Amino acid sequence: MSAGPVSSSNLFAPFLDRLAEAASGAIMPHFRQGFAIDNKWKAGFDPVTIADKNGETAMRALINETYPDHGILGEEHGPENLDAEHVWVLDPIDGTRAFITGLPTWGTLIGLRTNGVPSLGMMVQPYIGERFGGDGKTAWYDGPLGARQLKTRPCEKLEDATIFTTTPALFKNGERQAFDQIEAAVQLSRYGTDCYAYCMVAAGHGDAVIESGLQAYDIVALVPIIEGAGGVVTTWTGGSPADGGQIVASGDPRLHEILLRDLAKAA
Amino acid sequence: MSAGPVSSSNLFAPFLDRLAEAASGAIMPHFRQGFAIDNKWKAGFDPVTIADKNGETAMRALINETYPDHGILGEEHGPENLDAEHVWVLDPIDGTRAFITGLPTWGTLIGLRTNGVPSLGMMVQPYIGERFGGDGKTAWYDGPLGARQLKTRPCEKLEDATIFTTTPALFKNGERQAFDQIEAAVQLSRYGTDCYAYCMVAAGHGDAVIESGLQAYDIVALVPIIEGAGGVVTTWTGGSPADGGQIVASGDPRLHEILLRDLAKAA
Repeated sequence: MSAGPVSSSNLFAPFLDRLAEAASGAIMPHFRQGFAIDNKWKAGFDPVTIADKNGETAMRALINETYPDHGILGEEHGPENLDAEHVWVLDPIDGTRAFITGLPTWGTLIGLRTNGVPSLGMMVQPYIGERFGGDGKTAWYDGPLGARQLKTRPCEKLEDATIFTTTPALFKNGERQAFDQIEAAVQLSRYGTDCYAYCMVAAGHGDAVIESGLQAYDIVALVPIIEGAGGVVTTWTGGSPADGGQIVASGDPRLHEILLRDLAKAA
Repeated sequence: MSAGPVSSSNLFAPFLDRLAEAASGAIMPHFRQGFAIDNKWKAGFDPVTIADKNGETAMRALINETYPDHGILGEEHGPENLDAEHVWVLDPIDGTRAFITGLPTWGTLIGLRTNGVPSLGMMVQPYIGERFGGDGKTAWYDGPLGARQLKTRPCEKLEDATIFTTTPALFKNGERQAFDQIEAAVQLSRYGTDCYAYCMVAAGHGDAVIESGLQAYDIVALVPIIEGAGGVVTTWTGGSPADGGQIVASGDPRLHEILLRDLAKAA
């Protein structure tokens, strides 16, 4: 699988595919198989699988071997060299709950932060055989439908919008109220989608994703895909999404303005 | 794609694959493409696509040509010959909201009701290239992971269970209260999964699906898959699921007893 008909001017774009191969090879033997679930947190239920750990180990090894001066920020292991110009931001399985229930809406997130700015990213869904990539200027898809460029769709009114969120249960206090008001105004809302939702916005099948409590590794890879397809990703106050937190991503910049206004009271 | 290593003694099992091909050929050109959405209901938002209508038309034509004495009950067109011994129960796109947002968790449902009893069924996910089939005695999968038999997993306690529902918003009054109590007791719940959830229970990646307000075409195809994999599907009062309504499907019959007890107050 290549980056398709879209060529990226980013020097590191071909390396995304190598990282994707490495991660998929480590993860896929564990998908839809019986495996032990290791609870990372003593309280609550946070499934972390062997697949998650092995996927990150495989990507880290390839980065250390190929670009030993680059930094790495991942979900599973400790940070390395975060002061480097180029820092890879990795989430081997975004959507671990989808993964452990056999659903195909999880993905491997591979992001690159250059001087603090998300510059390149890919979401890989190896069970389906899909890759969504972007470099902030352009974005591409390769998978069952063939290689194609990703473009967001126009949507300038809340009442016409389809929005996604992982679950409204993520929102605390005022956040929930702000989300509920937006949800009541839109045409359609979908839950349980994790990283897959951002790729659907990039591909023009949805209009926005609204989330809170994200880590850098949940979002950095997705920013260059959404931006490359014509969309916008910021915090709820309109700031840089590079460190996670309260995140809103929109396919149409006009819709983004509306969402920022409506989220402001809980930002 | 064949039925895999599992052979069904049901005379009509090979015909499932022919219907799957016909439906997929009519539906797939419309997935992740721009298309008009026709609102079936004046109030509310019920997306019905050209793909949905064309998928059912293609399956009906093949049934009428091959088995002219069989009946047909579908979502999109009127019923035909419902007094026949064999009645095909069709939903070309179960999960139209997933479909229109580009998510791969919709499926084509092809069921056969013999003398009123669900006897054979298949769920087809053509974008991924997956088929989940069953005849009540056995159940099978074919797709990216290769052909394999489907088996539910043991789960005898609510606290160990993973449950699915399309959305809690489907539940009315007392139903919602009963569901919320169950949800608070289980290990994990997932929303927005439609027919895909039943296949994950059949494959042993989840333990139960709880829904309400289903039509016959939402459930008939899935019953022989769940039952063939070792699970149970009934109404909330333990009755036949053949006409839809309040439906609970469990991978482990012991869990099913617990769920029936907890749902009884809202049944």
